[in-house]
Amino acid sequence: MKAVLPDSKIPKRWYNILPDLPEPLAPPLDPETDEPMEPEKLLRIFAEELVKQEMSTERYIEIPRKVRELYAKIGRPTPLFRATNLEKALGTPARIYFKYEGATVTGSHKINTALAQAYYAKEQGIEKLITETGAGQWGTALSLAGALLGLKARVYMARASYAQKPYRKTIMRLYGAEVYPSPSERTEIGRRFLREDPNHPGGLGIAISEAIEDVLRDGNARYALGSVLNHVLMHQTVIGLEAMEQMREFEEPDVIIGCVGGGSNFAGLAYPFVKEVLEGKADYKFIAVEPRAAPTMTRGVYRYDFGDSGGYTPKMKMHTLGHTYYVPPIHAGGLRYHGLAPTLSVLINHGVVTPVAYHQNDVFRAAELFTRTEGIIPAPESAHAVKGAIGQAIRAKAEEREEVILFNLSGHGLLDLKGYEDYLDGKLEDYEPEHFPALGG
Amino acid sequence: MKAVLPDSKIPKRWYNILPDLPEPLAPPLDPETDEPMEPEKLLRIFAEELVKQEMSTERYIEIPRKVRELYAKIGRPTPLFRATNLEKALGTPARIYFKYEGATVTGSHKINTALAQAYYAKEQGIEKLITETGAGQWGTALSLAGALLGLKARVYMARASYAQKPYRKTIMRLYGAEVYPSPSERTEIGRRFLREDPNHPGGLGIAISEAIEDVLRDGNARYALGSVLNHVLMHQTVIGLEAMEQMREFEEPDVIIGCVGGGSNFAGLAYPFVKEVLEGKADYKFIAVEPRAAPTMTRGVYRYDFGDSGGYTPKMKMHTLGHTYYVPPIHAGGLRYHGLAPTLSVLINHGVVTPVAYHQNDVFRAAELFTRTEGIIPAPESAHAVKGAIGQAIRAKAEEREEVILFNLSGHGLLDLKGYEDYLDGKLEDYEPEHFPALGG
Repeated sequence: MKAVLPDSKIPKRWYNILPDLPEPLAPPLDPETDEPMEPEKLLRIFAEELVKQEMSTERYIEIPRKVRELYAKIGRPTPLFRATNLEKALGTPARIYFKYEGATVTGSHKINTALAQAYYAKEQGIEKLITETGAGQWGTALSLAGALLGLKARVYMARASYAQKPYRKTIMRLYGAEVYPSPSERTEIGRRFLREDPNHPGGLGIAISEAIEDVLRDGNARYALGSVLNHVLMHQTVIGLEAMEQMREFEEPDVIIGCVGGGSNFAGLAYPFVKEVLEGKADYKFIAVEPRAAPTMTRGVYRYDFGDSGGYTPKMKMHTLGHTYYVPPIHAGGLRYHGLAPTLSVLINHGVVTPVAYHQNDVFRAAELFTRTEGIIPAPESAHAVKGAIGQAIRAKAEEREEVILFNLSGHGLLDLKGYEDYLDGKLEDYEPEHFPALGG
Repeated sequence: MKAVLPDSKIPKRWYNILPDLPEPLAPPLDPETDEPMEPEKLLRIFAEELVKQEMSTERYIEIPRKVRELYAKIGRPTPLFRATNLEKALGTPARIYFKYEGATVTGSHKINTALAQAYYAKEQGIEKLITETGAGQWGTALSLAGALLGLKARVYMARASYAQKPYRKTIMRLYGAEVYPSPSERTEIGRRFLREDPNHPGGLGIAISEAIEDVLRDGNARYALGSVLNHVLMHQTVIGLEAMEQMREFEEPDVIIGCVGGGSNFAGLAYPFVKEVLEGKADYKFIAVEPRAAPTMTRGVYRYDFGDSGGYTPKMKMHTLGHTYYVPPIHAGGLRYHGLAPTLSVLINHGVVTPVAYHQNDVFRAAELFTRTEGIIPAPESAHAVKGAIGQAIRAKAEEREEVILFNLSGHGLLDLKGYEDYLDGKLEDYEPEHFPALGG
C-alpha cells in the first residue's frame, strides 16, 4: 500500500522554518574575530542566492522551474509506503508509514539540495563545486547535479567510507566528478591529519575543512554543503510537503521520525509538520535518532563551535561534541559528525524534538527485519530511523495504542552492503565513547 | 517528465501470447525419449499452476489479489520516464521514453514473476524454491519473494558473477536465502564441471542444471526459472500493460526495444504491443538487443535444444548456440545464455521482432552517456537496451524522422559497478566468438 503523486504535485515552494522558530537563531560568528559573520565573507564560500536563503525570513521560497523539472527527472515525488508486513511482524496496533527517499536516482534525499545548490551556482556563472562526503550519498548527489547542470564537481570523501564503499567512487566518476579520499595530500589541513596518522580514517569535519581550503584558493569555485545549514535543510522540505499531501490519502500521523547526522533529512520530513505544531494547529511528536558513537543530540552541549574539524567555517551555535571529536568508524558514515543543524538544536532545546541514540548492532538488526518484511535494504544511516520507528511501534504495542508512525527512509543501502555483511557475520563493533572534547573530556 | 500510476492501476490480468502467436508453439520434448513431454514429469519440477499456465491458451490470466498487493509493496506500477536530456545530447528529433523496472525494490523486473511463482508454490504447500541466477538479479528477486511469502529459497549463482558481484550474496542472505557459487560440489553436474576446470566461471545453463538436480532429490522443493518459459514471460507482461497505459499520457510509440538473455524483460514490455501488431491494429517495430558474446538471436539456429548445459531440462524449439556453448564472461551476466524463449524465437522467425547484437564496450559507452544525462546507472544487461535505443535515435536523426522510441530499462546497475569501473579504466574485453556448438563449430 502506498501513495504516489504525479510530477505536477512536486511542491512549488520550499518551507523556511526561520521565521517560525520559537526563538531567533544566534548569528554565525566569524572564526577569526568571533564577531557576527559578514555576508561578504560567506559569498566567497557559497553561491550568492544560497547566502540570501541562509538568512531569509520569508516563510516560503519559490522553487525555480528548472529545479522542479530536475526533481521530476530524478524521481520526485518519491513514494510513501505503508509497512504492513513490518507491522504484522511486530504484532503492533501501530500503523507504520515511511517516505522513501531511496527512490531518487541517486538513492537518497541528498539530491534535493544538490540540484538547488548547483542551479544557483550555475546561474551565478560559477564553474566548479567542491564538497565533502561521508558515506558518499552527498558526493553522489552533487556529482549528478553537476552533470545535469553543466558544472564540474570535486569531492573529498572520508577515507573510512572511501575504503568501505569503493563503488561510490565509481558512481561519482561515471557522473564525471573528481573524488579524493580525505584526509588528502591536496590541502594543508589534510596533510596535517596525515602526519598525525597516515591511515587516518577521516570524517565529515575533516573533509569539510579540505573542501573549504580548496575553494578558497580557486576563484571560480564555490563550496556546497550537504546538511546543517538553514538553506540546505530548507531545500529538503519537499520531502515533508509531499508526505503531508500523501498522508492525506491515509490518516494523520502521531509520531514523526528521522535519523540525524547534520539534520537535513530529518528536517526535510519533519519541519513542515513542526510548523503546524509551532502554530498550535497540531500535536505531533518528533523523534530524532542518532548513533551512540556520535551522540551529538543526546550528549553534546549547546554552544558555539566550528562546523568542520579544522576551524575554517563560521562558528555556529548548536549541539556539539567538540569539533575535534573523533567519531568512531561506524558504517553510517553520514552520521559521523560532531555538530548539528542550529535550527534543530533550537527545537531540541524547546522540547519540540526528542532525541534518542542507538548502537549500530541494534540498528542493523532493525534494518534486517525491515528488509525481510518490506523488501528494501535501508542505508545504515536511514536504518537508525527504522530502529526508531520499530521502538515506537513496540511502545505503542505495550501501551495498546493505535498510533500512526511516519518515518523518513532517507536512502537505500545498496552501496553499503559491507556493513550488512559484517553484521551478518557478527563482526560489527558497538562503540561507547565516554570522552568528548566539548565536555572537556 | 514521467508518468506514474497509483496502486489501483496495477494490471488485473497477465497477457498470454500463446493463442495469438502466428504459428502454434512446438511442444517441449522429454529429454529421455524425445517424445512430447508428459505434464506429470513437469509437475515434479514446477508448481502445478505454473505448468497449467505454461500450456494455457487463455489470452488473459487473472493476477491473484495477494500477488497484486505484493506488486504494490515492491514498487509497482513502476514509473515511465521521458529521456529528454539524452535526446538533447544526441541532437535527435526522436523522443525517447523508458519504462524503469529498476524502481522495484529488488532493482529489476525479475520480482514480477518471482512473486507469482512463489505465490503458486506456497498455495500448493511447497516449502522450498531452488533456482539459478546469472548476474544475481533473479536470485535476489526469488529470495525476496520467498521472504514475503514464507518459503525457503536456495540459489545457485554463476561463479563469474559470484566473484564480480559479491554483495549480491549479501542481499540474498539478508532476505534469508542460501546461495552457492555454481558449478558447486553440491551436485553431480557441478562436480563434473569442476573436474574439468576447478575455477570454472559457470553460466546460466550450468546453474540451471544444478538447481534441477537439487530439486529432483528433494521431495518438497520445486524449481523456479527466471526467464525463457511461457509462464515466466507472461508474468512480465505487467510491464507492457502498465507502459501502454502510461504512454497514453504522451504519445504512441513507433519502436519498442529491450535487451534479451532468455527474453523475459523484452517480452514483458513488448508482448502487449505485439498483440496489437498480430491483430493488425498497429504497426510497431520491435528490436531485441543481445551481446555479441552470446549472439543467440543473430547467429543461433532454430531447433530443439536443452534449456540447461547438463541436459536435464525438456528440449525446447528455440534459437540456440548449442547447450554446451561456453559464454565468455561479459559483465551482463544475465545475458550469458545459449538459448531463447520459444515464443520469442517464433516472433523472430516471422519477422515481427528484429534482433541486433553489440559489443560490451559499446554498450557501456551508451550506458555512460545515459547515466550522465538521465542520472540512472543501467544494469549491464539493460544497458544493451539503452544502446539499442541510442542506435535508433541516431538513425532517426540521420533520416530526420520524429520517431517515438520506447525501451525497457529492466534494472539498475548499482550492484554491477565492477563492470563500470573496468570500463572507465579501459579494461573491458570485447569477445567475438566464431564457433558455436549448434552450428557444428
